[in-house]
Amino acid sequence: MQPKQISSTSNAIIKEAARLKRKRSRHESRLFLVEGEDLLDAALARGILPRQVFVLEGHGKLLPHVLRAADGSGGRGAAALEVCFCSEPVMAKLSELGSGTRVIATFSFLDRKLAALGGGEAQGGVEGEAEGEAEPGRDGMGPLLYLSGTSDPGNVGTLVRSAASLGASGVAIGPGTADCYSPKALRATMGAIFQIPIYLGIEPVDLISRARAAGMDILRADPHAGVALWDGDLAGNFILALGSEREGIPPELMAAASTTVRIPQLAATESMNVAMAGTTILYEALRQRMAGISH
Amino acid sequence: MQPKQISSTSNAIIKEAARLKRKRSRHESRLFLVEGEDLLDAALARGILPRQVFVLEGHGKLLPHVLRAADGSGGRGAAALEVCFCSEPVMAKLSELGSGTRVIATFSFLDRKLAALGGGEAQGGVEGEAEGEAEPGRDGMGPLLYLSGTSDPGNVGTLVRSAASLGASGVAIGPGTADCYSPKALRATMGAIFQIPIYLGIEPVDLISRARAAGMDILRADPHAGVALWDGDLAGNFILALGSEREGIPPELMAAASTTVRIPQLAATESMNVAMAGTTILYEALRQRMAGISH
Repeated sequence: MQPKQISSTSNAIIKEAARLKRKRSRHESRLFLVEGEDLLDAALARGILPRQVFVLEGHGKLLPHVLRAADGSGGRGAAALEVCFCSEPVMAKLSELGSGTRVIATFSFLDRKLAALGGGEAQGGVEGEAEGEAEPGRDGMGPLLYLSGTSDPGNVGTLVRSAASLGASGVAIGPGTADCYSPKALRATMGAIFQIPIYLGIEPVDLISRARAAGMDILRADPHAGVALWDGDLAGNFILALGSEREGIPPELMAAASTTVRIPQLAATESMNVAMAGTTILYEALRQRMAGISH
Repeated sequence: MQPKQISSTSNAIIKEAARLKRKRSRHESRLFLVEGEDLLDAALARGILPRQVFVLEGHGKLLPHVLRAADGSGGRGAAALEVCFCSEPVMAKLSELGSGTRVIATFSFLDRKLAALGGGEAQGGVEGEAEGEAEPGRDGMGPLLYLSGTSDPGNVGTLVRSAASLGASGVAIGPGTADCYSPKALRATMGAIFQIPIYLGIEPVDLISRARAAGMDILRADPHAGVALWDGDLAGNFILALGSEREGIPPELMAAASTTVRIPQLAATESMNVAMAGTTILYEALRQRMAGISH
């Protein structure tokens, strides 16, 4: 691996990487950009290596621990890793956050194929490996979070972070949901995107048939209907379906939901922010599992 | 009240109002800008009237219900209300959200003076009235949220919204905290700023002496220390002190906190987003009050 020096914004490598600022390009190539040392560190801490690292020239000291991590992976990662020292204009071209970014990296998509839900055959662990298969909801793990129509990238990223923190078994992304690989969503995950299984392109009908096959409940939230959140039975395996604040979840999902919970609200506000509502429900599920509440 | 027509961005009224986009100007004049029909409606629904309304020319249909609300206030509001029909460039000059805003209004600051904490003498209600005095924590109401060093305006606005939803008795703003009257914070409140008492400029030492005088606990959160959130006693009156994700709360507040709660986290993430942590704790407090948990 010989580091490159790039000072031209029209360099072919840079043009190719800059295309990843667009959602379509990300999903065609199954690559995304990670901006800043904190997010890169979060990936390395999980043993997940970038494909490319772009470092602002004069900041090579930021590089060694990337290389150590690559070397530690048995040579496979280090050999494939492309390192480029870039001029400020080049970094600015790659950055979504504007000026000041010293490290940007490209990573392969992390999402996995959604296999059987709940119970089922035991399967080899693929923790931290992209495109493996995994079974969420197994072994007493927490709920699977399903997002459909959650269009704000900050909310999607925040929910990924809360899901990882509060022991959800994964996050499945449905139609109309902001791209979890967008810079704004990634920043809001604070690195949790590297910690929790992500499933992309899951249609509601697909989710529903899988939930039925596995005998898993689909739970939805409603500001005005359903049982008080603390009275719901959230200790078992279930799917938490969240939508948009204005539209809620798609009708077919609403019809398939066997449980509706209401976060009792004292004020006349229409509803909580969807990320707050999701976090609160995931907390209540964790509380019931860990504090041993039985219904 | 004779509506004005304004087409020049250098009109004195417009220049004066546009100054409110700056924090210092807002706090000097104790006025703030409210952008968009949703936020304006939230104020009117609580009987809180603007000082001025700027309406994009050709959208007078948006105005009548403002005027009805003003008329319904016994003439006082209607007489003082200044209505301006503005050209697009004028609206753009006032807007933080960029183009497309059809209604912008100026309001007086809503914050109140912080009187005695907890218990104490009964006092006339000043609900919805700016600059009245109120006693948070009275009558079995929820915790007082105190923010010190919470620098992200989106988080501050979201916490105000969650606090209103989950029955907190008020939000007190300390040093280093984002301005709750900034456009970004206001948007995140989704109108909850008009529903919950806000107290500005509360120094930690001041909060601590008031809490001591009232015999109220100060509770703080820590990702790695303290009792599991569900094992804490959150049913009574207390102050929830939140800081920044990186720095936590100021040392004097940390020393004064009698309770430390930990939101048990399963992932290796450093901590939850401060707005998520605050929301979760406010939910747990509401659950304990409403579900009748006793410790």
